[in-house]
Amino acid sequence: MEYSEKEGCRILVEVLAAKGVKRVVLSPGSRNAPLIVSFARCDKFEKFIVLDERSAAFMALGMSQQTEEPVALVCTSGTALLNYAPAVAEAYYQRIPLIIISADRPPEWIDQDDSQTIRQFGIFGNFVRSSYILPAEITCDDERWYVNRIVNDAINTALQRVKGPVHIDVPLREPLYGVKEYNTCMSERIISHFGSEECLSADTMNTFASYFNRTEKVLILASFSSPDKTLNNVLSILSKKDNVVVFTETISNLSSSGFIPTIDRVLSAMTDEEKKAFSPDLLITFGGSLVSRMVKKWLRDNPPKEHWNLNSEKHFVDTMKCLSSQISILPSSFFTGLRPLLTVTKSNYAIKWEEIRSRAARSHNKYISEIPWCDLKAFSILLPLLPSGVRLQLSNSTPVRYAQLFEYSQIERCDSNRGTSGIDGATSTAVGAAAVTPGVTVFITGDMGFLYDSNALWNRYISPRLKIIVMCNGGGSIFRFIPGPSELPELESYFETHRDVDVEGLASLNGFKFFKADSETSLKSVLPAFFDEKEKPVILAIETPRELNAEILRGYFKRNQ
Amino acid sequence: MEYSEKEGCRILVEVLAAKGVKRVVLSPGSRNAPLIVSFARCDKFEKFIVLDERSAAFMALGMSQQTEEPVALVCTSGTALLNYAPAVAEAYYQRIPLIIISADRPPEWIDQDDSQTIRQFGIFGNFVRSSYILPAEITCDDERWYVNRIVNDAINTALQRVKGPVHIDVPLREPLYGVKEYNTCMSERIISHFGSEECLSADTMNTFASYFNRTEKVLILASFSSPDKTLNNVLSILSKKDNVVVFTETISNLSSSGFIPTIDRVLSAMTDEEKKAFSPDLLITFGGSLVSRMVKKWLRDNPPKEHWNLNSEKHFVDTMKCLSSQISILPSSFFTGLRPLLTVTKSNYAIKWEEIRSRAARSHNKYISEIPWCDLKAFSILLPLLPSGVRLQLSNSTPVRYAQLFEYSQIERCDSNRGTSGIDGATSTAVGAAAVTPGVTVFITGDMGFLYDSNALWNRYISPRLKIIVMCNGGGSIFRFIPGPSELPELESYFETHRDVDVEGLASLNGFKFFKADSETSLKSVLPAFFDEKEKPVILAIETPRELNAEILRGYFKRNQ
Repeated sequence: MEYSEKEGCRILVEVLAAKGVKRVVLSPGSRNAPLIVSFARCDKFEKFIVLDERSAAFMALGMSQQTEEPVALVCTSGTALLNYAPAVAEAYYQRIPLIIISADRPPEWIDQDDSQTIRQFGIFGNFVRSSYILPAEITCDDERWYVNRIVNDAINTALQRVKGPVHIDVPLREPLYGVKEYNTCMSERIISHFGSEECLSADTMNTFASYFNRTEKVLILASFSSPDKTLNNVLSILSKKDNVVVFTETISNLSSSGFIPTIDRVLSAMTDEEKKAFSPDLLITFGGSLVSRMVKKWLRDNPPKEHWNLNSEKHFVDTMKCLSSQISILPSSFFTGLRPLLTVTKSNYAIKWEEIRSRAARSHNKYISEIPWCDLKAFSILLPLLPSGVRLQLSNSTPVRYAQLFEYSQIERCDSNRGTSGIDGATSTAVGAAAVTPGVTVFITGDMGFLYDSNALWNRYISPRLKIIVMCNGGGSIFRFIPGPSELPELESYFETHRDVDVEGLASLNGFKFFKADSETSLKSVLPAFFDEKEKPVILAIETPRELNAEILRGYFKRNQ
Repeated sequence: MEYSEKEGCRILVEVLAAKGVKRVVLSPGSRNAPLIVSFARCDKFEKFIVLDERSAAFMALGMSQQTEEPVALVCTSGTALLNYAPAVAEAYYQRIPLIIISADRPPEWIDQDDSQTIRQFGIFGNFVRSSYILPAEITCDDERWYVNRIVNDAINTALQRVKGPVHIDVPLREPLYGVKEYNTCMSERIISHFGSEECLSADTMNTFASYFNRTEKVLILASFSSPDKTLNNVLSILSKKDNVVVFTETISNLSSSGFIPTIDRVLSAMTDEEKKAFSPDLLITFGGSLVSRMVKKWLRDNPPKEHWNLNSEKHFVDTMKCLSSQISILPSSFFTGLRPLLTVTKSNYAIKWEEIRSRAARSHNKYISEIPWCDLKAFSILLPLLPSGVRLQLSNSTPVRYAQLFEYSQIERCDSNRGTSGIDGATSTAVGAAAVTPGVTVFITGDMGFLYDSNALWNRYISPRLKIIVMCNGGGSIFRFIPGPSELPELESYFETHRDVDVEGLASLNGFKFFKADSETSLKSVLPAFFDEKEKPVILAIETPRELNAEILRGYFKRNQ
């Protein structure tokens, strides 16, 4: 096999391949030539070449998120690496195993005024599971062993129970472009990691079950997670219990008729007395950070007696200020272990919630039917018409919130960058997601986020299965909705950066087919063609009235008063 | 005065204003509302609202670079701050005093799954002069004193002898949107910093002068710096000495008929024997990292006996591997102190260089006159026609290199992001530069860099005095020029990401007037109208043949063989 003559690069590439890493996103550069050449010559990888490293990293994140497999990233030295930072932080909090590989100058040239040189090692300290640096040369077998060991360790670490990004810095000395034939019989040693089974002792489990069984009001609250059939099944069974209600956020990727997937719709239909009366005695949470501000406020204002958070991080997370136990076990293992121990608990908790849910749905439908054309109306039309089996990507901040107000179970999975909730890379994430999945990916974004990440549109990997919907509403009116800024004179000039985004221009510049809707009728009439298009990626701009959107949404949350 | 009710923000804003910070670039967000509101209500600042934080930070860098004054940056919590990172690293190595202010969650909410929360404090550790964190609340006079002291310290630190960015993290608790009337008589205390005069002892100076006087071959080599009249004058005098030659890079902003400003042109006209013979006995360097690879190679291959680097950093910089003394003093002070101590040294060093310079100019002119249309030809036409007094911004990597091959002294100043030599933010830097300077800014960029930083084009602050020239050559052919990749089969698919960039489309989308040239004749005919346009910002796309560019440039460097 011919690789770069930098043997460290050969070992790196071969270990990654042998460990089953299948995809690599490379950004061109000179210092990283030995890495590029080595990856290029290994046919085990699907390769993506992306110029803007910020976009490249979010694309890799989208790929890893959808495939649930590690994805490698390769960039040159200098600020190239820093452009990865936003996606690395998002991957850290979304627990996505990105293998970040950066070319670097050799140590003797750091801070010696050579170009494209920064102090790279460890710069992602806060946002990676671990940082590694390879030796600059391979001069002996010990160094071969060392590189093999580091790369094995990096991948194993990225794929630990709590997954996440890792950073491997690769110092490279000139000359950079030599290649070399290696003995094909050399094969890199793989060090596997078998994590221990997660289980609680029988005593502990019995204690939890006993508490659960004597508790009349149990709320299970699921925030963002990858789809998990075992978990979905066991929760579906638990949701039939009289003392249990299961709240699922849209991006929890859990679905059952017994769950309540429209948390804000339901909570906004309740009186303060009901909110107090329905406060759980036991709250069980898992997944990442919550989208719903309402559920956080409700539970902080009406704290449950017990709060168990299923979380394998080193630190506990006390989002509701009432945590009693951190339980370091997978949600599926916990509930599967708990289920056989549960007995019948007399309670009307589930029935009462079902009543509220029905009432909330009625008032929801009535409100929606009566409002004029606006964002809320557009989502009410759009979401039920999503073709069955699509993958949905939602951007921050308003699309992911609107989407939570509706019930729809026809989608394959739904994701949003809620690890850090930035608007910076949602389009690139969707582009990466669509590039590696079969079927259709629908991405719903705001116009500001769309503009922010417009670099996502001009790479070569835009799948014809990608369908982008841009809510053209002048920045989501998020600042009009929040009570504070809407009353400030600074609203228009400082908070809403509402220039009209030329979505059609960007679409045409980047080879997308363009659709537009600015009314209920036009949206309904345009959606079939939009979803049917198979040859080209498509962008649909939905134009809604900026001032009205926030007012209607505020009204929605007061519809039962 | 009415400010945010978060008193820390009032103090921050008032100290910045009192210390003379005049400009702030703000990116909208919710957590940073108290900062936005406080800046908005203080009329001491020129305010710029920019959505994409990566672009915002490079704009601030351009502003600070041109005005030589600190510029503040304000963003919200989460990945917003990480998008500043590339510009912060560039500012660090370019020694530009950016005051980076980030809103943050209060400490109790870090890693508790609240949205837009990352571990922010100290994340720019490697690339800022210092990091600060304000207290989350002002509850007593000691905290008022503390905030005042921190902000004073941050600004003083950014403006030390070795300038650079500083980071102030501002934790803010909800509610975020309250405002409050403050007593207008409160005025924030300013703590000034008077740096000591930099001077060497008479003994030390005499030792240096004595060495200088007995050395027949002295090379003074200037890399990137802001314009400095005192330095320019004293070097102009020194350049008349028989034993002295002064090499200046284009972005050293030094200009005199006695200097050699075309280092690569001259070195490429020399034989190996001449390079050996002309190696200096004493090399004196100052400024940032060098653009010219040739001069580094020449001096590493033919090391001078002594190398003095004028550099006030804490660490020495041994770029040529022959450093003998780090001298922590401003170049202007050093040469001004040295000059009166210098005597006549018998030498033909200056004369010999002048001969080589003439020969290099002749062969340069001959070569240029004979080549067909290409990048080199385009630069040869363009640079002499730059209107007098323009500010020139050059992107990495090829524009800054081509520009060094030509002599032109009509420009006001010339800059390039050579701190870390990235391509990521050059357009934003030029947009920021043009927004705060009188007169015309001409920005020459490659097509890949132009595409990379296209977000720079759609903010509201594009000056009609900004003139952008895009070299449409499929990525600068840099990888065709370097011997390594040009011979690799991976060249086209991995290194040259040469898709045709639709410069006209981007221009029209963003309200620029568009010009195009694809030949010597069309370039000459289009330049007058391009430079004369006063109403609108303009973009000129210069299309050159990708394959030919590298070949012609290679030929140029061999023209005297």
